[in-house]
Amino acid sequence: MNESWLDEVKWDEKGLVPAIAQDLETGRVMMFAWMNRESLLLSVQEQRAIYWSRSRQKLWRKGEESGHIQRLHELRLDCDGDVVLLVIEQIGGIACHTGRESCFFRKLDDQGKWQITDQVVKSPGSIYKNKG
Amino acid sequence: MNESWLDEVKWDEKGLVPAIAQDLETGRVMMFAWMNRESLLLSVQEQRAIYWSRSRQKLWRKGEESGHIQRLHELRLDCDGDVVLLVIEQIGGIACHTGRESCFFRKLDDQGKWQITDQVVKSPGSIYKNKG
Repeated sequence: MNESWLDEVKWDEKGLVPAIAQDLETGRVMMFAWMNRESLLLSVQEQRAIYWSRSRQKLWRKGEESGHIQRLHELRLDCDGDVVLLVIEQIGGIACHTGRESCFFRKLDDQGKWQITDQVVKSPGSIYKNKG
Repeated sequence: MNESWLDEVKWDEKGLVPAIAQDLETGRVMMFAWMNRESLLLSVQEQRAIYWSRSRQKLWRKGEESGHIQRLHELRLDCDGDVVLLVIEQIGGIACHTGRESCFFRKLDDQGKWQITDQVVKSPGSIYKNKG
């Protein structure tokens, strides 16, 4: 596979593209992160989600500490070429560092309050203990 | 409803937050855009998606020309508070300006080519004619 498909992605001024991860089975939007060219290429080569951590300024191999890796099943590009959608299989059923399935676990209610709708599947303490 | 929930959103350095729109019925990720504080507030007040157009630097009332408005059913916030997810009802079944259901109509194939997987439901010419 050549890498010309990467040239069709419109990287932003920082060389990044927004990435949405959606669960293959449930269709649930699991998380949102950013990718640079290297991380997107590696994601396809290794068939797992590898993001670019803006805070740490380094590759973020999703699941490297938790074991909750995201196997890549489908990679999609939007009409403007500036957003990617990853359809993934979420190993362990947990995408969020809080131990919940999805990072989008808060919902605005009618009173204007963010309500937590999802339970913690596994405590972060037990997810991350003894890991990197 | 007071507006303190807006203070829990972590706006970026431009005062924006990424917004993902997902179809209520199909679960499909329809599009990705940006919102500022005003557009997010209006989206909730009017119960329809209103984005901030970065290119035009103005409010973008999704569907104002096409009629393909997005009725807001659910608003979600991610763990870091810096991304919102809108679960919407897509009027007309078309979110993309190309006349396709979703903006994510291209999929990377095994040969490293972006393949169009979705047909045009309605031609852009007929969607946008005679409209502002």
